[in-house]
Amino acid sequence: MQDDLLLTAHALADAAREAIRPYFRQPGLQAENKWATGFDPVTAGDHAAEKAMRAVLAKMRPDDAIIGEEFGATPGTSGVSWVLDPIDGTRGFLSGTPTWGVLIAASDEKGPFLGMIDQPYIGERFWGGLGEHAMQGPHGDRELRTMGSRPLSEAIIFTTFPEVGTKPEAEGFHKVASQCKLTRYGMDCYAYALLAAGHIDLVIEAGLSNYDIQAPIALIQAAGGIVTDWQGRPAHEGGRAIAAAGVEQHNAALEILRDVPLD
Amino acid sequence: MQDDLLLTAHALADAAREAIRPYFRQPGLQAENKWATGFDPVTAGDHAAEKAMRAVLAKMRPDDAIIGEEFGATPGTSGVSWVLDPIDGTRGFLSGTPTWGVLIAASDEKGPFLGMIDQPYIGERFWGGLGEHAMQGPHGDRELRTMGSRPLSEAIIFTTFPEVGTKPEAEGFHKVASQCKLTRYGMDCYAYALLAAGHIDLVIEAGLSNYDIQAPIALIQAAGGIVTDWQGRPAHEGGRAIAAAGVEQHNAALEILRDVPLD
Repeated sequence: MQDDLLLTAHALADAAREAIRPYFRQPGLQAENKWATGFDPVTAGDHAAEKAMRAVLAKMRPDDAIIGEEFGATPGTSGVSWVLDPIDGTRGFLSGTPTWGVLIAASDEKGPFLGMIDQPYIGERFWGGLGEHAMQGPHGDRELRTMGSRPLSEAIIFTTFPEVGTKPEAEGFHKVASQCKLTRYGMDCYAYALLAAGHIDLVIEAGLSNYDIQAPIALIQAAGGIVTDWQGRPAHEGGRAIAAAGVEQHNAALEILRDVPLD
Repeated sequence: MQDDLLLTAHALADAAREAIRPYFRQPGLQAENKWATGFDPVTAGDHAAEKAMRAVLAKMRPDDAIIGEEFGATPGTSGVSWVLDPIDGTRGFLSGTPTWGVLIAASDEKGPFLGMIDQPYIGERFWGGLGEHAMQGPHGDRELRTMGSRPLSEAIIFTTFPEVGTKPEAEGFHKVASQCKLTRYGMDCYAYALLAAGHIDLVIEAGLSNYDIQAPIALIQAAGGIVTDWQGRPAHEGGRAIAAAGVEQHNAALEILRDVPLD
């Protein structure tokens, strides 16, 4: 069962890679405007990848449920749900940056227990859960471990946009960031992979959907890190998340963020 | 002579790749604090790469001058200067992001005429000048062309940090960005490569050194783009730069930025 789930996750990532690659960095790539307000482009690659992953699940795990960013929820009977975001970071994708990713999580009633982040252009894959925490990349394979505890004054913190959700949420983020050594933006889901791999200390985000955060949660927990919402509770339903490399960074961020009002 | 210069540029990038790779994403990577104020880490990789590139030049082009970020200026007699930044984006390097790069430019009394941006981890190389404008990457080779003119309302704009130089410079940047469709941060020199490759419209920066901008200038000009300072003059001595995919984006940015005071 465990081997089967890991094999399935790799098969899903392989299928998504193949489906997306023809669309990445192609001239004239068209984006639909998903919401009338704001800018959340959905590319043909997004649709093609989720379709390809659903076809893999129909074959390999037909009794599992599916929650996909593009095509919604499909019920199952096994107790396992696959939570899929075919392209996390569509703005980065449209800009040609190699820091978007395919997010794949398997979850049960307690939350995600297996998470995978795949970057098809670089050919990098990070996964954790069911006893594994590892990556494959252009320069080989290795085990993933977060860097562990250290004070905020030494920490590297990431979020995707400096705006980070509502005004009070942005103020909360920047209060944490002001105590860190270095703040970086623009990495989409790739920041969670860097945290699992031991390079950075904190990723703080708000306004997430469940498919944005379930794969990072399982990946980072398997690599020794901590992911909660801004009150220290499970974050797998989405909303606000603190991902931390160790207890010290997590506690320090929580101390600042736990009383931030919603808007 | 032209072939020789192109071959030398590739040999420099090859040498830098080999020198830097052992240091990227290694646990316990130590950073020196180059300036007492601020945070500009210089890694062992930075030093190793510039040494390796200087050794290549000593062999292949001993009469050329060298201007390197780490070891300063070495005079020459040929009229050609190599302007080298072994790791542009040291903060990104220390965070594990794959968007720092090796910058290599060849220049004469008129400015840079050959520019190369290499990303050793991904294995991507972008170069332009002497009749070439091309890239090699994990999915093959292709020609580089900027996307050409389009209005700011459709444009994608990048800069590395939301702070962008002095307070008036940051205000100028954000005034341009507010008229664009999408603003992204955190890509270091990789943003210039994305512009040359036709994916984005504008990169605007301030506080640059000559070794930060000479390779992007030659690369982007060869691919059909425009790079000037904020007054429309040559930018190769550093300071403030506007890199644009076409005349329309360049004019619109210049209109907003030309009167921005220094501080």
